[in-house]
Amino acid sequence: MKSIHAEIISIGDELLIGQVVNTNASWMAQVLNRIGISVLQVTTVRDDRKAIMEAVSAALSRVDVVLTTGGLGPTKDDITKTVLCEYFNSSLVEDLNVCAHVHALYKNRPDVLNNLTATQWLVPDHATILPNRIGSAPIMVFSHDNRILVSMPGVPHEMQVAMNEQVLPYLQEHFELAAGIIHRTVVVYGIPESMLALRIENWEKNLPQSMHLAYLPKQGVVRLRLSSYGEATEQEVDWQIGALMPLIADHVLATDDLTPHIVLGHWLTEHGQTIATAESCTGGRLAALLNEQSGSSAFYMGSVIAYDNSVKQQVLGVLPDTLVTEGAVSEACVRQMAEGVRRLLHTDYAIATSGVAGPTGGTPDKPVGTVWIAWATPDGTITERCHFGGDRAQITQSASMAAVAKLVLWLKRNASK
Amino acid sequence: MKSIHAEIISIGDELLIGQVVNTNASWMAQVLNRIGISVLQVTTVRDDRKAIMEAVSAALSRVDVVLTTGGLGPTKDDITKTVLCEYFNSSLVEDLNVCAHVHALYKNRPDVLNNLTATQWLVPDHATILPNRIGSAPIMVFSHDNRILVSMPGVPHEMQVAMNEQVLPYLQEHFELAAGIIHRTVVVYGIPESMLALRIENWEKNLPQSMHLAYLPKQGVVRLRLSSYGEATEQEVDWQIGALMPLIADHVLATDDLTPHIVLGHWLTEHGQTIATAESCTGGRLAALLNEQSGSSAFYMGSVIAYDNSVKQQVLGVLPDTLVTEGAVSEACVRQMAEGVRRLLHTDYAIATSGVAGPTGGTPDKPVGTVWIAWATPDGTITERCHFGGDRAQITQSASMAAVAKLVLWLKRNASK
Repeated sequence: MKSIHAEIISIGDELLIGQVVNTNASWMAQVLNRIGISVLQVTTVRDDRKAIMEAVSAALSRVDVVLTTGGLGPTKDDITKTVLCEYFNSSLVEDLNVCAHVHALYKNRPDVLNNLTATQWLVPDHATILPNRIGSAPIMVFSHDNRILVSMPGVPHEMQVAMNEQVLPYLQEHFELAAGIIHRTVVVYGIPESMLALRIENWEKNLPQSMHLAYLPKQGVVRLRLSSYGEATEQEVDWQIGALMPLIADHVLATDDLTPHIVLGHWLTEHGQTIATAESCTGGRLAALLNEQSGSSAFYMGSVIAYDNSVKQQVLGVLPDTLVTEGAVSEACVRQMAEGVRRLLHTDYAIATSGVAGPTGGTPDKPVGTVWIAWATPDGTITERCHFGGDRAQITQSASMAAVAKLVLWLKRNASK
Repeated sequence: MKSIHAEIISIGDELLIGQVVNTNASWMAQVLNRIGISVLQVTTVRDDRKAIMEAVSAALSRVDVVLTTGGLGPTKDDITKTVLCEYFNSSLVEDLNVCAHVHALYKNRPDVLNNLTATQWLVPDHATILPNRIGSAPIMVFSHDNRILVSMPGVPHEMQVAMNEQVLPYLQEHFELAAGIIHRTVVVYGIPESMLALRIENWEKNLPQSMHLAYLPKQGVVRLRLSSYGEATEQEVDWQIGALMPLIADHVLATDDLTPHIVLGHWLTEHGQTIATAESCTGGRLAALLNEQSGSSAFYMGSVIAYDNSVKQQVLGVLPDTLVTEGAVSEACVRQMAEGVRRLLHTDYAIATSGVAGPTGGTPDKPVGTVWIAWATPDGTITERCHFGGDRAQITQSASMAAVAKLVLWLKRNASK
């Protein structure tokens, strides 16, 4: 079976001055992948005749289907329809179906049915028109040498309804698509990308030609993504993942595309357990990470951010002696912080952090990036001295991520004992 | 003065299967705009030799500067460096500076200094190498017929540091952009963009042709940026700012491009005062905001994140009766939280938040987005019921920003009495 390739052209000045992030393109790529269409390129251009013409021409020379979004509003800065008309040697004609639809859409808003809105039911005579259930801009399909171009509105929700209800079914029929593209993601922690690559070198080398492995590292977490393009079955892809797992088992956080804090949240919720945090250098970032997800109140009780030493002593019960002799960035301090907050908030687990986030405050013994982490558990307290690179923001983010990821690995190891 | 045009090429399979949203491109467009470079197009391509070659060739035919991100990791799916080498007829040679930098970066991680990592200090002999302070992949600048191509890592934070510290200064020098361009930013809070625009309409209309005003809204904060391209003197631009100020004085947070939390930090440090926070719905985000800056330990004592009601009662001293009769999202609760943490941590000021971050938990009385904020001060406690739109992340971020920005406005008003 022929594999079908697509390109997305996102049209709009707002995307090129950084006012709006192009979330449409990634959403579209996901749903296109699901029906077996690969996206080879995304091109973002301004509301500019020449730029749109060139992008359309280049895209149609490369792929089977071009999807454009944006530039279909009734105001004069939106020019996509007239430019496509020109490109495909088409003329604008009134479409009675679109006219009736727009009138129905605005039946309670007679003020909107002005001269500008009336341009919405002018459509290119050479295009197939698909209905836009929730908006006024028609969805247009142009054909060109066995290739097609679909033009859709750029408002995310309108585009998504158009894709789901009209464009995806149209493409599935037009191209007789069968097998989809299959992606599997394994989330790994505690092993640098380069060491991971060496460890799984032989496995990776023996992957079938139609499968491709990608490494996506972020804050110490590496997402390994295995993609199969059209030839393998789900079972064959899963078999490869099965062969990979024993090589990296001690580092696997999740076999779905989940972040470490989501995995921890699921675990705690499932086991009916709770957690608290006591933070010094991470200063709230760890707490924010843990309750990023909805439903976190089921497992997350709270935190004491003990930025000042007086708070460490008075609220968490860290011994004054520890602060004097070993300092705030020490194993003893972080252990007392974790145990203190676990006691104070009556939780099953507690995590504490204390370190040097920089840029100032480093010493030869405890350079910037040094972070002590403690995990208080029902089986006792574990501590670790870590070192993180980067600037203040990176150090606190990496430390927060490590505090969560290492607890997940510990919970999994402990459960499998 | 010649206007400088750029294109961004984002490289990476993850962007084309919808796994990662391309936030890099919009961030880069913003900062490039700020130094007077317009972005004409963003092209996103796979980690594929032919696709990268074609995109680079097309971009170099259109603009003065091409910026690529991604594909610079040590693993074999990353091919940007070798493809650019081929395109620019360059060979890879060892770079001793990069080698020393990578060794310094991993001096505590000898296991990372393996054969794969060693490829990071191979650089194209025809490229200018700019240092990547926080990562191992060198930033490469290629020249081609008076046009330049800059290749950077794709990890967002690494790219941002590279842009801010290396690439933007390099471009400003290379294209002589700095001369004549003057920017002034006024940071405003508590007035929607459209109302602000109406309020300053006459002032804006009377600006000289060579000056341009931009509205940069984010989380309720609007940065008004007045830019002058070449013709006006510093004094003339400052005179316009002087004429603007009385129109918006009650909403001005800063007359420099500072975030509200930086302004608050400066104020507290200057006045030798301290602050603490007690957070429910913002769950650590407010604390993280306050100690984002280095030196925050001078004014920030700590926080109690009282996610669970038991913590509100036992640690902060919220009355059980209040929680039963009025609930956690109430004026009385948030007032007691602020006063409780101010007492507990012995600070001059304290901020408390309690609200419904969603997506669940809303009621007709207290819909998702409702947030009570209290500010405990030496002059008594102020409270306000706010409502924020968007999803969970947006609501908690906007609430944290509001909690800080409103305190800054209060401090300024109070000081001028």
